Amino acid sequence: MNVLIIGGAGMVGQKLVQRLAIDERLGDREIGAVELFDVVEASVPDSSFEITASTGDLSDQSTAAALVAMRPDVIFHLAAVVSGEAEADFAKGYRINLDGTRYLLDAICAAEDYCPRIVFTSSIAVFGAPYPEAIGDEFLTTPLTSYGTQKAIGELLLSDFTRRGMMDGVGIRLPTICVRPGRPNKAASGFFSNIIREPLAGKEAVLPVSDDVRHWHASPRSAVGFLIRAATIPSEEVGTRRNLTMPGISVTVGDQIEALRSVAGDQVVARIRREPDEAIIRMVDGWPRNFDPQRAIRLGFEADASFEDIIRVHVEDELGGNIS
Amino acid sequence: MNVLIIGGAGMVGQKLVQRLAIDERLGDREIGAVELFDVVEASVPDSSFEITASTGDLSDQSTAAALVAMRPDVIFHLAAVVSGEAEADFAKGYRINLDGTRYLLDAICAAEDYCPRIVFTSSIAVFGAPYPEAIGDEFLTTPLTSYGTQKAIGELLLSDFTRRGMMDGVGIRLPTICVRPGRPNKAASGFFSNIIREPLAGKEAVLPVSDDVRHWHASPRSAVGFLIRAATIPSEEVGTRRNLTMPGISVTVGDQIEALRSVAGDQVVARIRREPDEAIIRMVDGWPRNFDPQRAIRLGFEADASFEDIIRVHVEDELGGNIS
Repeated sequence: MNVLIIGGAGMVGQKLVQRLAIDERLGDREIGAVELFDVVEASVPDSSFEITASTGDLSDQSTAAALVAMRPDVIFHLAAVVSGEAEADFAKGYRINLDGTRYLLDAICAAEDYCPRIVFTSSIAVFGAPYPEAIGDEFLTTPLTSYGTQKAIGELLLSDFTRRGMMDGVGIRLPTICVRPGRPNKAASGFFSNIIREPLAGKEAVLPVSDDVRHWHASPRSAVGFLIRAATIPSEEVGTRRNLTMPGISVTVGDQIEALRSVAGDQVVARIRREPDEAIIRMVDGWPRNFDPQRAIRLGFEADASFEDIIRVHVEDELGGNIS
Repeated sequence: MNVLIIGGAGMVGQKLVQRLAIDERLGDREIGAVELFDVVEASVPDSSFEITASTGDLSDQSTAAALVAMRPDVIFHLAAVVSGEAEADFAKGYRINLDGTRYLLDAICAAEDYCPRIVFTSSIAVFGAPYPEAIGDEFLTTPLTSYGTQKAIGELLLSDFTRRGMMDGVGIRLPTICVRPGRPNKAASGFFSNIIREPLAGKEAVLPVSDDVRHWHASPRSAVGFLIRAATIPSEEVGTRRNLTMPGISVTVGDQIEALRSVAGDQVVARIRREPDEAIIRMVDGWPRNFDPQRAIRLGFEADASFEDIIRVHVEDELGGNIS
């Protein structure tokens, strides 16, 4: 089978293709080739099958048609202008996240005798406060960001196009990915990862919110597991509601810190410096804290077992097992 | 103040402009002019202020810019390709209901120093089975038609554009309008009105479903009341969730028939002929039956008091008080 990863140069796209290179298959089917598409050229891991990297602009209507012309059996649509940028640049967010997604779906529709599985990464940003204690599978989507709005619209299109038999879509709402590897980024949510990753690497990290802030996390490894499950789950098991809130771990920042202490010790925890940031505190206040994603769990999507496990995944996958 | 009614030739648009012509004001502001825009030329009622009718195609991007150039204070966006047609003609539904709505919102954004109230008529078609006993204000939108999908997307855009201060939008999910005046139409939901309107006019009506089918209704008069409340409600009272399920009356077909009997007698009820239609039975099975629209009720939206009242509204407004 052939696989297309749109957003293949991103963190999740890279983790996914590395996993596919190791597995050599997706579900029970052998992989013939993988194409990594992104705005910048993706790194290509070693593998037994062909992996190509291509670049382009998804908001150019002809791009999607060219991608679909190769008739991949599975399309992972991971590409998006992220939350902060979609808020800062209104037009760009709509152009890439909404128009780009629609061009892709329209291109799939337009191809005759073609009905690929498309896995769409949505986000918990489709939800907006006020929330119940834990957000269930029947809670409404009232996003409070343009990014969340664009993802919620993508979900609706995916459902309708799937219902009409034009594609076989599954949308998955990823938790905040933690521990995000790489350098500290300026996303408001970055501190959830920074306070784990930086101290583990011997560096100081700033914590801008109080210890009782609760949030919803999954490791990059779990995120890749979700994508693979979403790519291989039988369509009829999903039913008419094609978008699923993924499982995760709900912990407070205090819980995160105690997990770090139990995995890496007091000396590592001491590298976290508390420096409240009112702007971030206000933003985080509107974010979801906890979910009750029964459908996804029933459908075989598996989260990390604990936040300690999330830290251990990071140490194994990013630090070669070593803590500074 | 100036008012634009997009979809001004439709049943609800006509009822609305007739009411505005009588009231001469919208809330506490005197009306200066009303423009009725539609694909066909709207009838213009007598009034003390200027009413103009214009025609055009909302899916032509330049149309919205021209409509917005006149800077109406309130825009009622009632225009849509209806449910059956949006399902039969996939491209047309998306072109008018999604692209047309987006062009309108984009045109409002593009106008400087302009932030009109826009009232968007959404629909209970944004919901999809399975449902709880009564659908509450926090129930998810998983439409099972392309029309419902397009309306749900319109709701999301309206919320986001309003949140960003580009307009002041309120979306209202209308119940099925009953008794719909005019001739029997072929909409699958038409029978809810047909079985009341036709017998009252001395004609036979076909009932294609069983008496225990429950549905959610509002009179045309109530629908106009909803529109006027949505046009005049203070924005801060609505809050961040800009889309509201309107109140209505939940009755079974059997209840409708008994209400008809109590208003018009056995002889009128005898004109209903039962003729089950499997296709309609299957479709209706997926429709919402009952709601618990607490937010809208708290915000002052008022439904009819009973189905008998819905029938009396029809007899007064359409039949001059006379039953055949």
